[in-house]
Amino acid sequence: LQSGMFVQVRMMLNELPAADVAHFLESTPPKERDLLWRLINTEREGQVLQFLDDEIRNEYASNMDPAELAAATRDLDIDNQADILGDLPDRIVKEVLASMRVQDRHRIEHALGYPEDSAGGLMNTDVVTVRPLVTIEVVLRYLRMKKELPDNTDSIYVVDSEDKFIGAVKLSSLIISQPEQPVDDVLDKDIQPIPVSLPDDDVARLFERRDLISAPVIDENGKLLGRITIDDVVDVIIEDADHSLMSMAGLDENDDTFAPIVTSAKRRAIWLGINLITVMVAVAVIGVFEDTIKAVTALAILQPIVPSMGGIAGTQTLTLVIRGLSVGHISSINFRWLMLKELGVSVLNGLLWALVVGLSVYLFFSLTNEYSSSAPQLGITIAGAMIINLVVGATLGAVLPMIMTKMKIDPALSGGVVLTTVTDMVGFFSFLGLATLFFA
Amino acid sequence: LQSGMFVQVRMMLNELPAADVAHFLESTPPKERDLLWRLINTEREGQVLQFLDDEIRNEYASNMDPAELAAATRDLDIDNQADILGDLPDRIVKEVLASMRVQDRHRIEHALGYPEDSAGGLMNTDVVTVRPLVTIEVVLRYLRMKKELPDNTDSIYVVDSEDKFIGAVKLSSLIISQPEQPVDDVLDKDIQPIPVSLPDDDVARLFERRDLISAPVIDENGKLLGRITIDDVVDVIIEDADHSLMSMAGLDENDDTFAPIVTSAKRRAIWLGINLITVMVAVAVIGVFEDTIKAVTALAILQPIVPSMGGIAGTQTLTLVIRGLSVGHISSINFRWLMLKELGVSVLNGLLWALVVGLSVYLFFSLTNEYSSSAPQLGITIAGAMIINLVVGATLGAVLPMIMTKMKIDPALSGGVVLTTVTDMVGFFSFLGLATLFFA
Repeated sequence: LQSGMFVQVRMMLNELPAADVAHFLESTPPKERDLLWRLINTEREGQVLQFLDDEIRNEYASNMDPAELAAATRDLDIDNQADILGDLPDRIVKEVLASMRVQDRHRIEHALGYPEDSAGGLMNTDVVTVRPLVTIEVVLRYLRMKKELPDNTDSIYVVDSEDKFIGAVKLSSLIISQPEQPVDDVLDKDIQPIPVSLPDDDVARLFERRDLISAPVIDENGKLLGRITIDDVVDVIIEDADHSLMSMAGLDENDDTFAPIVTSAKRRAIWLGINLITVMVAVAVIGVFEDTIKAVTALAILQPIVPSMGGIAGTQTLTLVIRGLSVGHISSINFRWLMLKELGVSVLNGLLWALVVGLSVYLFFSLTNEYSSSAPQLGITIAGAMIINLVVGATLGAVLPMIMTKMKIDPALSGGVVLTTVTDMVGFFSFLGLATLFFA
Repeated sequence: LQSGMFVQVRMMLNELPAADVAHFLESTPPKERDLLWRLINTEREGQVLQFLDDEIRNEYASNMDPAELAAATRDLDIDNQADILGDLPDRIVKEVLASMRVQDRHRIEHALGYPEDSAGGLMNTDVVTVRPLVTIEVVLRYLRMKKELPDNTDSIYVVDSEDKFIGAVKLSSLIISQPEQPVDDVLDKDIQPIPVSLPDDDVARLFERRDLISAPVIDENGKLLGRITIDDVVDVIIEDADHSLMSMAGLDENDDTFAPIVTSAKRRAIWLGINLITVMVAVAVIGVFEDTIKAVTALAILQPIVPSMGGIAGTQTLTLVIRGLSVGHISSINFRWLMLKELGVSVLNGLLWALVVGLSVYLFFSLTNEYSSSAPQLGITIAGAMIINLVVGATLGAVLPMIMTKMKIDPALSGGVVLTTVTDMVGFFSFLGLATLFFA
């Protein structure tokens, strides 16, 4: 790239589909990326912007001249325009809006009024509507006259004189039905309208379960506002999934993988700092038992086992419940059953691993010179602590996501930290505490 | 439910969309679920089966009479039939196939020949094809004669006399174009055929980036075999995402959330057992330094800090790289850059937290009576170990997924275990090892 293959690269960038160009930019380190971005023709910039990850998109969009940005995004779908503008600073948004035509500006301002993560934020306004009593023949003639249909149009909508939604007709029904029938004879009953305020993950679940390609969006009075298409829903699904995975490690799915070292280091530092605080809590618990450890050094050697096992068992339950909540399998109705089940699982596994670890520890230390007399106590101590911590871990893993969701805290982001803090504390406390009772 | 509302529940189960019934079953504990399943009309069982999670579906399908199963699944899409049969024991599959009509059996046997996770496994054979030179008017008349089009038909395919794929025409193009044109004048250039052997996650990425609704599938000679529709692709996307999340906790995304206690306990036990082995390795490392700990009990108190911070830093890099590989952002070309970046991030954060923790430890212990003379050594020891372990964690987090992917091991499943085993070992070894040098 450095060696002047500019012409070829520019040709490639301007011939590839915009989504591929965006993917290519996302996969490129910042310096080369800036260079590539400058090689993209101005009229394609809007196309590429809409496919870029939030962080990178904001960087390039906010560095563009407002008039240029307005021109570049003019031909995009209204929801994508709103997405691009929605993340920019207010000052820039105002300038961009000011350089738009009045009609465009009104449409965008309207779209920006809906929360990005609702049906309204996913919606496009490019719907084709007809009246209920016209015949299919007339509809077909009307569509042919339009010469172009919006992307992903698989159905057109039937509305009354006040724009209230009556029903949807699939293009395929138009094609296979008798031309003299009125359109409201061939309405598709599977296509139900979506309320404009429905959260985007509910929209995604609806599309998934009903195998929808597009769906109409209505306001609280039943008036047709627009439609949502599957391509935008797929993006929601992917983002939700990325979010759970990345949050569990304290990462943000919208961050640039190839961000500069200092930027990334700062972001990660926060998570490491939070972790440090939680470890310090665990360390403080150990500190309480300093005298016991001084008397029996074997405890210092064995101490990581119980916290680690409790953390793993708890994380399993936590992950299961977080995912169950997000796919809608778990609700307050079946939660009690699930909670008891997880408790049962932890008791069984607690007993199993208490036995295995307790016996191993007993056998191992009874063979040493120094600890042979205290081997039974060591075995019983670790076995008891194991059962306690596994039960605590599972209970917490089940309860935490439910409580956090009710308190509007994201369990994927903070559930793991809270859980392991507690399982560490309880693990050290139960192990060293029981040991103190035995050896004091 | 227990109190005889059977009639109402049965009505509900048989009126709700099959996908919702499946979701409802998945959200119900096993006993009630079995009861509900028996209330579903026989002719709907196939519909519901296709939407159920693997584990639950296999249970019910393998308990059905083979002839009944054959009848229940007869009207499903061929890919869904193959999915249901593909997971059942060979003996049952043979019996089911034997009770099918010859033609159906051949189609299923053919579909079962493709791997489930390839384009062939996602494909349906219900395509509508026409020849290149017929006019749009003739095509429209032909479609109207058919009276019904397969679900999610947004385009029809143009093939030559040997069934070789020439191109696709969108239904919307058929509607808006002049009737006297031949169809190959209105081919949609965006719709490229997919090779039958393409892995399903590549298919999903293609659909995502090209915003496809359906795409044709061809064999190595360019012959049209079938088509893939977005609803099946959405399922692949969701399953992939679930897989990464659940694997990280050693769970299987296909397992029943409400499985009986003993079943779940057995599954979880394996993961806990693996974890126990890794902790034992760490414990063995600590054991090596028993004499040092005996001399300086403060080391026992401080020992969880370094392994924990290294594990967190490593997991962040690991998660980032696993996700980058799965969305296709990371390849061998930009990996070197990313690796160096992660190394840089870990050095910066290593220095930062080494300073914070080192100073805190120094200050804290210089105020104690017992350790005030060894406070500087304790501070330097933990600071040095911190830098070493954060760098090791980040390096491993970056390298592991690349190596595992090359060795066809799933990094989401085993990457975390290997990583934390190493960061625990290195954490304890560097901290206690440096301490031994200072205090011996």
